[in-house]
Formats: sequence, structure tokens, C-alpha cells
Amino acid sequence: MFGSIQATVFEIASIWGVLFIAFMGLGYALMLRAQIMRQDKGTPAMQEVWGAIRTGADAYLGRQLKTILPLIFILTGVLFFSVYVIPPSEEALLRFSSYSPDMVRLIVGLGRAIAFIMGACFSLMVGQFGMRMAVEGNVRVASASRRSFAEALKIAYRTGTITGMLTDGLGLLGGSIIFIIFGLASPDVLLGFGFGGTLLALFMRVGGGIYTKAADVGADLVGKVEKNIPEDDPRNAAVVADLVGDNVGDCAGMAADIFESYEVTIVSGLILGLALVTITGQIKWIIFPLLVRGIGVLSSIIGTYLVKGKKGNERGDALASINRGFYASAAISLVAFMFLAHFYMHEWRAFFSVGVGILLAIVIDEITKYFTHTAHAPVKEIAGSSKTGSATLILRGLSIGFESSAWQFIVIALTILAAILLYWGQPVVFVLYGVAMTGIGMLTLTGNNVAMDSFGPIVDNANGIGEMTHMDKDARQIMADLDAVGNTTKAITKGVAIGSAVIAAVSLFGSFLADVTKVQLQMGVAENLRLLVTGIRVSEPIVFVGLLIGGAIPCLFSSLTINSVAKAASLIVEEVRRQFRIPGLMEGKVKPDYKKAVDICTVSAQKELVGLALIAVVSPLLMGMLLGVEALGGFLAGVILAGQLLAVFMATAGGAWDNAKKTIEDGLYGGKGSEAHKASIVGDTVGDPLKDTSGPALNPMIKVINLVSLLAAPIIIHYKRTDLGVIAAMVICILLIGGAILYSKNGRLSFKKAKADSAW
Amino acid sequence: MFGSIQATVFEIASIWGVLFIAFMGLGYALMLRAQIMRQDKGTPAMQEVWGAIRTGADAYLGRQLKTILPLIFILTGVLFFSVYVIPPSEEALLRFSSYSPDMVRLIVGLGRAIAFIMGACFSLMVGQFGMRMAVEGNVRVASASRRSFAEALKIAYRTGTITGMLTDGLGLLGGSIIFIIFGLASPDVLLGFGFGGTLLALFMRVGGGIYTKAADVGADLVGKVEKNIPEDDPRNAAVVADLVGDNVGDCAGMAADIFESYEVTIVSGLILGLALVTITGQIKWIIFPLLVRGIGVLSSIIGTYLVKGKKGNERGDALASINRGFYASAAISLVAFMFLAHFYMHEWRAFFSVGVGILLAIVIDEITKYFTHTAHAPVKEIAGSSKTGSATLILRGLSIGFESSAWQFIVIALTILAAILLYWGQPVVFVLYGVAMTGIGMLTLTGNNVAMDSFGPIVDNANGIGEMTHMDKDARQIMADLDAVGNTTKAITKGVAIGSAVIAAVSLFGSFLADVTKVQLQMGVAENLRLLVTGIRVSEPIVFVGLLIGGAIPCLFSSLTINSVAKAASLIVEEVRRQFRIPGLMEGKVKPDYKKAVDICTVSAQKELVGLALIAVVSPLLMGMLLGVEALGGFLAGVILAGQLLAVFMATAGGAWDNAKKTIEDGLYGGKGSEAHKASIVGDTVGDPLKDTSGPALNPMIKVINLVSLLAAPIIIHYKRTDLGVIAAMVICILLIGGAILYSKNGRLSFKKAKADSAW
Repeated sequence: MFGSIQATVFEIASIWGVLFIAFMGLGYALMLRAQIMRQDKGTPAMQEVWGAIRTGADAYLGRQLKTILPLIFILTGVLFFSVYVIPPSEEALLRFSSYSPDMVRLIVGLGRAIAFIMGACFSLMVGQFGMRMAVEGNVRVASASRRSFAEALKIAYRTGTITGMLTDGLGLLGGSIIFIIFGLASPDVLLGFGFGGTLLALFMRVGGGIYTKAADVGADLVGKVEKNIPEDDPRNAAVVADLVGDNVGDCAGMAADIFESYEVTIVSGLILGLALVTITGQIKWIIFPLLVRGIGVLSSIIGTYLVKGKKGNERGDALASINRGFYASAAISLVAFMFLAHFYMHEWRAFFSVGVGILLAIVIDEITKYFTHTAHAPVKEIAGSSKTGSATLILRGLSIGFESSAWQFIVIALTILAAILLYWGQPVVFVLYGVAMTGIGMLTLTGNNVAMDSFGPIVDNANGIGEMTHMDKDARQIMADLDAVGNTTKAITKGVAIGSAVIAAVSLFGSFLADVTKVQLQMGVAENLRLLVTGIRVSEPIVFVGLLIGGAIPCLFSSLTINSVAKAASLIVEEVRRQFRIPGLMEGKVKPDYKKAVDICTVSAQKELVGLALIAVVSPLLMGMLLGVEALGGFLAGVILAGQLLAVFMATAGGAWDNAKKTIEDGLYGGKGSEAHKASIVGDTVGDPLKDTSGPALNPMIKVINLVSLLAAPIIIHYKRTDLGVIAAMVICILLIGGAILYSKNGRLSFKKAKADSAW
Repeated sequence: MFGSIQATVFEIASIWGVLFIAFMGLGYALMLRAQIMRQDKGTPAMQEVWGAIRTGADAYLGRQLKTILPLIFILTGVLFFSVYVIPPSEEALLRFSSYSPDMVRLIVGLGRAIAFIMGACFSLMVGQFGMRMAVEGNVRVASASRRSFAEALKIAYRTGTITGMLTDGLGLLGGSIIFIIFGLASPDVLLGFGFGGTLLALFMRVGGGIYTKAADVGADLVGKVEKNIPEDDPRNAAVVADLVGDNVGDCAGMAADIFESYEVTIVSGLILGLALVTITGQIKWIIFPLLVRGIGVLSSIIGTYLVKGKKGNERGDALASINRGFYASAAISLVAFMFLAHFYMHEWRAFFSVGVGILLAIVIDEITKYFTHTAHAPVKEIAGSSKTGSATLILRGLSIGFESSAWQFIVIALTILAAILLYWGQPVVFVLYGVAMTGIGMLTLTGNNVAMDSFGPIVDNANGIGEMTHMDKDARQIMADLDAVGNTTKAITKGVAIGSAVIAAVSLFGSFLADVTKVQLQMGVAENLRLLVTGIRVSEPIVFVGLLIGGAIPCLFSSLTINSVAKAASLIVEEVRRQFRIPGLMEGKVKPDYKKAVDICTVSAQKELVGLALIAVVSPLLMGMLLGVEALGGFLAGVILAGQLLAVFMATAGGAWDNAKKTIEDGLYGGKGSEAHKASIVGDTVGDPLKDTSGPALNPMIKVINLVSLLAAPIIIHYKRTDLGVIAAMVICILLIGGAILYSKNGRLSFKKAKADSAW
């Protein structure tokens, strides 16, 4: 399996063990599914509303699949043929030394194409299957809430856990299968796996983000503001779209996003691990990340199963119970990591690297809580500023968003510094490996995190079903309590998602460096992998150019996503207004056409996607082809820096405004209906697309750009030396096509008047 | 003058010629001053209001001086003794070869200290003298407007030109005097000059920004919103503070900011020019930027003198006349540059470099106009979004701000790319020199630009005096028209200020690289200045750490400046409310105490300054001392990237909201008093501190950080090799003291509840 390097029996066994654990995780998910499906689905009225949500969810998922499939088809071909541009690595020739070089080329090409399909399908499965389960779960939670709090909590959390275990299980499955087949040649193929996952995550994250906020803002602007009817009122035509949107955004979008980080950290962990294997001749560096992941899945299974309510439980106990599961998983993992470090790695740096990752998850969680939770100064200040109107409230939020960005930068910087100190005196590759291990460590408890996150939309939807079918008061109180808990758990996951995206991107950046050096070594340009000769010197003007253009991309992306929500929301507003004019609808005699609103959201979310995905895929190619691989490195640094700045800024400001509004609704400064409340609604409406669409959209964008660069690097280095002109011409064509598509879809990438200016 | 390198007679003569031109520029300013002072100051009522403004302005300027003086005193000492840490350069020893090395050390030390004082004083003079002249001018414009439009225009523009010519003349004077005395050893001393200018600019820019917006927001929140009385109503206690604020922010702050860019570009132009002199043995590289600057001053004198109204002139003609002057200056400069390139430089690359600079000024101007002018799509879209309320209006503004940041990044990147292409195949230092020349070219017409900018607050104040003294209708129409023109010219300068700050920072970054290499050469670490061995490799984890922390600084700065405005404004709100409760004041029988409001603004603006200045000065020192010179390079790149992103974003969004409000006030969507108008007021209030305080504050911040790094680089490289521990301990002390001051001043740099949360 490992060519000339000897693996111990323990190592061989443990790799198969990891594969077994991946299946265990999936089996656990199936078992939970069976448990959930046995639960009753409540009254016919509840099932009717649920039917509408399910139809809407199916419509979105079906349409999304149709939009994405052709692209997957094309890219599979591209990835297969890429192996005919750049020959397979020496490791691949060694791994399959019994075959002819042409045959090996075919094997690697097929492997890469299949891995890409696998990555894409796994990402799709996490999103689609997870979201379908969430929809199955919500009506059952609503039904169970008529019986007891404990039962409703258990059903909701376990439904969420299904998505969590899918994320864990599929991520580990893909990585370990590829590793078992390809051994040290895995990096040749792993990139395909990573790219499939990230691309799909980009689609689901951005599409979901646009969908959910278009429906939310559209429903609120007409329902709550214009007609003054409550949220989730069945007469509002967009109410089902809004409920579907919660699943599309918070469940499918978020799960795919975290799955992507999970996948990408293992990809970069293995690539950097391989570099260390080459340097040290020890195989442990590449086994370690797989074992850490395996331990994480096991501890998540145990921890999540511990979460269940007791008789007579209440709101506070729900969060405590969920947290108990989380800490149990964390404790099990840590102890196991210590054993691993002591008995297998024979060194403690490995343990501390993953330990820093777990610490990072906790610190980011605390920072997110500090800046967005009602108990702390920032949200209180924002709420206080509502007394002088919405403008001052917005300003305070912006200020707090910037401040949180600053702290987040410092925390990530300290994380990298920790890796530097841990591997002090060692070659740079070790430090990069340390950073990748931090990413692996941070995502150890992905199962628990995704479970907590998916819990949110499930109880939110259950609550919506309760409102729409006028269920009895006790049951609705239980669901409202669960909904409040869900809001907290969702917020925590959001911080983890951003933090992990940045660490994953930095790991990918590290892999990019190692990979570029490796290719240059093979071509005789570089001298020593240990030294990482390919410095990305921002002191070179061309690299600085790359850095600046890299900074432009997240800005452009944020601008476009905000506009996309605006455009889609304005279409929803028109539709809901139109339906309110139907005679009898306002009196509740005629049912609104929910499907129409769902269709509008679905179609417009998909429409905007293609242009945004093209920016993420084409921009690094263009940069690399035109300005060379070093400028591409600068570009990546710029994307990471500006991307993190904006992602954290938007997520924090949005979250803080949201909770400031909630504080006021709980009775502060005059409570609901007061001037302060109106000001806080403005803040919340501004923050909604920032925190749920534009901010989160940057997570997959950063990762896709880094992965595309990693994939394209060998080709860029190779062709840079032979025929730049041809490539440049080709790339300009891509640019023109991309630009044209963008232009037609978005109406104004260039200085052109927007069509949508009649709306908002 | 140039050691072993021979200078031609033409070169010697032209340097003295440049000095003469600098004095000419100053003489022109004095002549204009005499012209203005001869004009009449209007009625006693007008003089009374004017007296209040003047007293307020004097109070601010006096207080500012008192705050700054101790710091200047300390830093002068630091700069003098710095020469005992790092020995004078070889060029200095050569220049003063008739003296002993100890004597040369003394000369350079004294030179640096005096240059620092000179830089600081010049910056102060531009701000203080310019602002005093603006105050002298406004009442005279008001008085002249009773006679004719043409006369009012001429007085206002010429008063503004005084500040413009001060900026030009003093900037050139400092540079040429130092060059005449120190010759090729100038860089030893020039840094002191640059640092003095940038530090003072930081104080005036940030202090002015906080002052003006605190007064503005405070006056509006109580006057316009709570009491429903018009702007500039004499019963509002903050109205004089508001008028003073316009001068403090737009005149003193902006002039100092542009003076700083003007100064810093010549500093980096000479440093990089010297590097080329060393490499090529030709002295022309260092003479060229001085000559370009001289030509610029001459053409500004001619161009600005051409601006005058004609009988029967109206609003449109005013802008046309100002533009005519601008284009005349531009044409003269371009023709002269061509002659210079052909007959002196004997190459066209030099011409194209400065040409790109002029082009850059025009392109940035166009982009700024496109995104913030009422005639184009973005502002129309924002205005249109007011129909669905303030939240959608804010979102559109944020989106447009992000988009403009993206374009600005691309434009600056293309500028650097132009330098790369111009000096293709040459060593990196040539490219850096090209970028510096672009900066020099961009600021060629500084005289005109600052004149146009200062014109703004002068006519704004004249208009305010008109309102407060109830002048007759025709005169007030003239002043209102001039005020509208002033808003346009102010907006144009804002774009130039940001663009030039970034280009200046990039030039400084280039000088930093050249300087670090030079020191390393002297110490035997580097090998060749031509190759710039000191790459700043972001691929090194420690440099990436620097990059991330660099990204944090502008975020922190923005957050703190927004909060500073908020705190100061809340104090003003309380004061104005208190005064309105005084019996008889509302009826106009009792006069409000204007001085009290002025005092509050003055004190709070100064109070916040120290902490912010400390961040800018201490953070690069800390970075360099703790993580080394390469990480410091990464830090600078991060500061430039994040700084530009936020500066452009805030300036554009703020400007666009402002003009969207104006469009609506001109009658769109229901005009004044409509719901759309209310929504647009929210946008304007949010945008005000962003575009006039936080955004502009980033310009000097970026430059100060770069200059401090440039100053500290040799010390960092030197001490890094001897005694890191002592330095580290010292720095930690600085950090602690800085942190303590910041903490006490701002209340919450760290996770601490703000005192101000009771306000907004």
C-alpha cells in the first residue's frame, strides 16, 4: 500500500478500522432514521401543512439537481483528462508499479473523475438527505410536543444527528476509501474528491442563502410590515416558502458547508502528511489524521446518543442536555488523542496540534457568543442605541462587526503562531502540517455540531406548523421553547463554520505551497521540498497585484449576493401582494397558492448561482494563467484575508442586530411596537441577508478558490514554460463567456443600470 | 552635493529652481491672502456669527496644539537619538567626508530631528493656517454674495487656493531643502520629515473627523429630528460647533491628509530614486521626481489663477470654471513632462509613469462619481430602494460600497501592473520606482485639488452665516448654489485622497523593501540591492501571521472611530437638549451657549486621538520586534489590503446614501417629508461618520504604519541579531502602557462593558 515504506500491522489494521468506523457512523444515521420514521405524523391538518413544506423542499432539491448535473458532467470529463496534461506522480507509478505507465495514467484519471463524482454526491447527499430528514422530523416533533417536552426534544435532536452523522460518516468514508486504494498516491485523487465537495457546497450554500432570505424578507415586508399580520400566518402566500427556506439555508446549506470544511481539512491533512512522509520516511504522519477523524466519529456517536430529555424537563434543560452530549464527546476525543500521541506517534506535538484545534473551536464559540448574545455588552449597546433611532443602531452594529473581525483575525493568527511554536526549528512543511492538524482537531466534533445546527430548522418548522394549524397552547409553548434553544445552537455553529472555513483555507494554502514545490521539484525548478523554495513574495510587484485582485473578489461576491437577495425578495413581494388582492384570501376563505412563491424562490436562487460559481472557479485560473503561480499565491492570500474580514463582519453584525431586536421584544425600552422596536426591526432586516446569505457564501467561496488553485497549479507551472499564448487566449475566452453569463444573469457586473431598480 | 557622481549644471540649477518654485507657491498663497483680507466682512450681525465660528475654530486649534506638542517634543528626541542606534549611511559619510564620523552622526541626528519638526510644523501650518483662512473667507463670501455671483465665487475659490498652495509649496520646500543639504544622503533625514507630516495628519484627520461628525449628528438628532427646526437654526446650541466642524474636518483634516500623501510620495520617490542612482550611477532618477513636482506647482499656480466667475454667471458655470482651471493645469503639466522626458531623461518610461498617475487620478475620479453621483445607476438604485424602507436602502448602500471596493482594488492593481509592464525585464527596484512615480504623477495637481476641496467648507459656512443672519433671498440663492458646487468638489477630492493614500502606502512599502535590503547589504546579510533579496514570503507561516494581524488593525481602527463619534455625539445631544430646556431659548429671547458645545466637541475629539495614534505607532514596532522584519512586511501588506477595502467601502457607501437623500429631497418618491425621505435620512445618518470619520481616518493610518515601519526597519534588523529579549520586554511595556491608555480613553478595547452604553 505504501510502496517502499513499511507499515506496521497496527497501521494497516487501523486504516481498515477507520473505514469500519465510517460505516458505523452511517449505520448509526440509518438506525436513527428508522427510529424517527416510526413516530406518528400528527393530525391531518398538520400533515397538510407538512405536505406543502415537503413538496416545496422536493421542488427545490429537484431543481437544484437539474441545474448542477450538467456542470458535474462537464467537470468530471475535465478532471479525467487533466491527467493527460500533467502526468501522474511518482508515488502513483510506484503504487501501481505492476501496470504500464499508460495504464497508471488511466487509473489515476479514472480515480480522480470518480473521486470528484463521489465528493459531489456525498455533499449532495448530506444536503439533500439531511434536509429531507429534517422535513420528516418537523411534523413528528410537532406531534410529539402534544405529549411531552422530553419526547419532542429527543426526536428533534436525533433527526438533526442524522445529518451530523452523514457529514461525519461520508467525509471519513471518502477519505479512507481513496487512501486504501491509492495509498501514498492519494493526493493525485483526493483533490478531485475535495473539489466535488466544495463545488456542491458552494451551490447549496449560496443557493440556500438566497432562497431562505428572499422568502423571509419577502414574507415579512408584505405580511408583518404592510398587512400587519403575524409571522407564519397561513394567509401569507410566502409562508411555506419561508419554512422551506429555513431548511434550505440552515440545514442543507450549513451541513454542506461544514461537510466541505471537514472534507477539505482531511484532503490538506493528507497532502501535507504525505510531504512529511517523503521527508522523514515515517508513515505515521499520514495515518494520524485518519485516526483522529475516526476517533471523532466514534465519540460523536456516543455523545449524541446521550442527548435526551427527562420527564418534566424544560427549556433550560434542553440546552444543558445538548451541551452534555457535546462535552462527553469532547472528553472522549481528548483522552483518545492522548493515547494516540503517546503510544503511536511517540510525541506530544501531534496531540497539541489537534488540541489547539479544539481550543480554537471553543474560543471562536466564546467570541461569537460575546458579540452576538443578549447577555453581553455588544448586543446590549446595540439595543440601547435603538433609543436614538435606527441609524445609530445600525452604526453600533457596524462598529461591533468590525471589532469582531479584528479579534477573529488575531485568534486565527495565534492559532498559526501556535503551530509555529510547536514545530519550532523544523522545516516549514511541519508548521503547515501543524496548521492542518489544527483544522482536523477543530472539526473533531462535527457530528455534534451539525446535529445542533440542524436541530434549529427542525424545531423552527415544528413551531411554524403549530402556529399554522392552531395547535393547543401547551404544545406550542414546548415548541417555542425548543425554537429558542435552536436559535442558540444555530448561532454557535455559524461561528464554527466561519472559523473552520478560514483554517481549512489556510491548510489548503499550505497544501498549495507544498504541491507547487513538489511539481517544481519534479521539473527540476525547485531543489528541496523541505525548504519550500517557492516563496510567495508579496515584495514582488506582480504578487502584490495578485494580492489586491484577491481582495477584490470577496467584495464583488458580497455585493452580488446582497443584490441577488434583493432581486429575489422583490419578486416575492410582488407575488404576495398580488395574492393578497385575490378576493376572499384575506378573510381566510380562499387558500393562497404557496407553490407559486416556492417556485419563484427556487428559480431565482438557482439563476444567480451560475455567475457566482464562475467567479470562484474562473478567477484563480485566470490569475494563474496570466500572472503565474506566484501571483496566484498572492491572490489566494488576498482572498483569505478579505474573505475572512467580510465573512466575520457580516455574520457578527447580523447576529447582533437580530438578538438586539429579540432583547427589545422581550420588553426592553418599551418592548414590541415601541419606536425602539421599530428601529431594531430595521437592524434585523439589514442583518438578515448579511448573516444568512452574503457572509456564509464567503465560506465555500474561499475554499473553492483555494481548491481550484491547488488543482490547477501543476498545469499552470507546466504550461507557463511552454505555450503561454495559447493558454492566455483560451482563458480570455473563458473570461468573456463567464462575463457574458454573469452580465445576463445579474444585470450589472459592469457599469450597467440594474433592471431591478424598480423594486428595491 | 552628490559625492562621486557628477551632476550637470542643468541639474544643479534645476534643484535650486525647484526651491525657487516652492517659494513662489508660498508667495502666491501670501498674495492671495492679502487679496482676501482686503474684502469687507459684511454687517455686524454677520460678523457676530462669524466671530463665534472663529472663536470656536481658534479654541479647537489651540487645544489641538497643546495635545500634540508634548508628543512632538518626545519624538524629536527619539529621532535624534535613533542615529546612535543605527549608524549614518555610507552616503552620509561620503556627503560630509570633511567631518569626522562622530560629527556626521551628530549632523544626521540633528537633521533627522529638525526634519521631523519641519514635517510636523508644515503639516500643522497647512491645517491651521488653511483653516484660519477658510474662516476668514467665509464671512467675506457671504458679504460678496450680496453683490454678485462672480465675486463670491472668486473669493471662495481663491481662499481655498491658499490652502492648496500651502500644501504644494511647503511639501516641495521641505523636500528640496533637505535634498540640497543632504544630497544623496537625504533618505537618512527624509524619513523624519515624512514621519512628522504623517503623524500630524493622523491627528488632524482623525480629530477633525470625530469633531465634525459629533457636532453634525448631535445637532441634527436634537434639532432636525426631535425639535423639528431647520438646519443651521440659531437656537440650536450645536449649530456653531457644526459650522466649525466643517472647517475642522473638510479643510484642516483633508488638507493635512493630502499634504501627507504629497510629502510621503516625494519621500518614497527619493528613496527609490536613490536606489536606482546606486545601481545605475545616473543621478537623473532622483532629480526627476523633484522636477515633476516643481512643474506641478507652477501649473497649479497658473491653473488656479484662471478660475474666476464672469458677470451674470450661475451655478453650472462655477463648476465649469473650476474645471477649466484644473484642465489648464493638467495640460501644462503634461506638455512639460514630455519635454522633461525627451530632453532630460532621454526615455519615455518616466513620462508614462507619471502619465499613469494622472490617468489614475481621472479614473478614480470617474469611479467615485459613478458610484456616488445622483446621475448614475447606484445612487438611483439606493434612492429607489427607499420605497421599501430604510433597511433595504441600507442594504443597497452596503452592496454598492462593496462593489466599489472591488473596482478600486482592480484599478490600483492595474496601476502596479502598468509599472511592471513599463519596466519589464528590469530589476524589481525599477518597478517600485515606477509605482512611486505614479504616486508623484497622481498628486501633480494637488494645488488644484486642495483648492477645490477647501472651497467646500468655505461656501458651506457662508451659507450657514446667511441662514443664521436671515440675509436676503438673492444672496442666499447664490450661496446655496455655491454650496451645491462645493459638495461636488469635496466629493471628488475624497476619491483622490483615498486613491493617493493607497498608492503612497504602496510606494512606502516599496521603499521599505529597498531599505531593508540596503541595511542587510551593509550588514552582509543580503547580497544585491538589484535583486531585492528580502522577499516578504507570505508562504512563510510567520509572515502569514503578520498578514492576518495587519488585517485586524484597520478593522479595530474603524470600530473605534465609529464608537468615538457615537460617544462624542451623545454628549452633544445631552448638551443641546439641556440648553433647549432653558426658558426663553426656544422663543429666541435667550441666546444659546455655543461655546459649551464647541468645547465638548474639542475635548472629546482630542481625547480619543491618543489611543488611536498609539495603535498606529506601536503596532508595527511590536510586530517587527516580536516577529521580525519579514513578518512586518506581511503586516504592512495586510494593513494596506484591509485598509483600502474598508476606506473605499465606507467612503462610497456614505457618499451614495448622502446623495440618494438629496435626490429624494429634490422631489423624487414624494420629496421632503415622505416615507422615502425618512428612510433616506437613516441612510445619510449611518453614512455620515463612515464617510467623514472612519473611512478617511484610515488614509493617514495606513501611511503612518508604513512610515514607522520604514523608520524602525534598520533598528529591527540590527537588534534582532543581538538582544531580542531586552527589546521584547521593552515592547511589552509599551504595549501595556498603550493598552492602559486606550482602555481608559475608549472604555472598551477589551471585552469590557462600555461606559457610553447609556447613550447610543
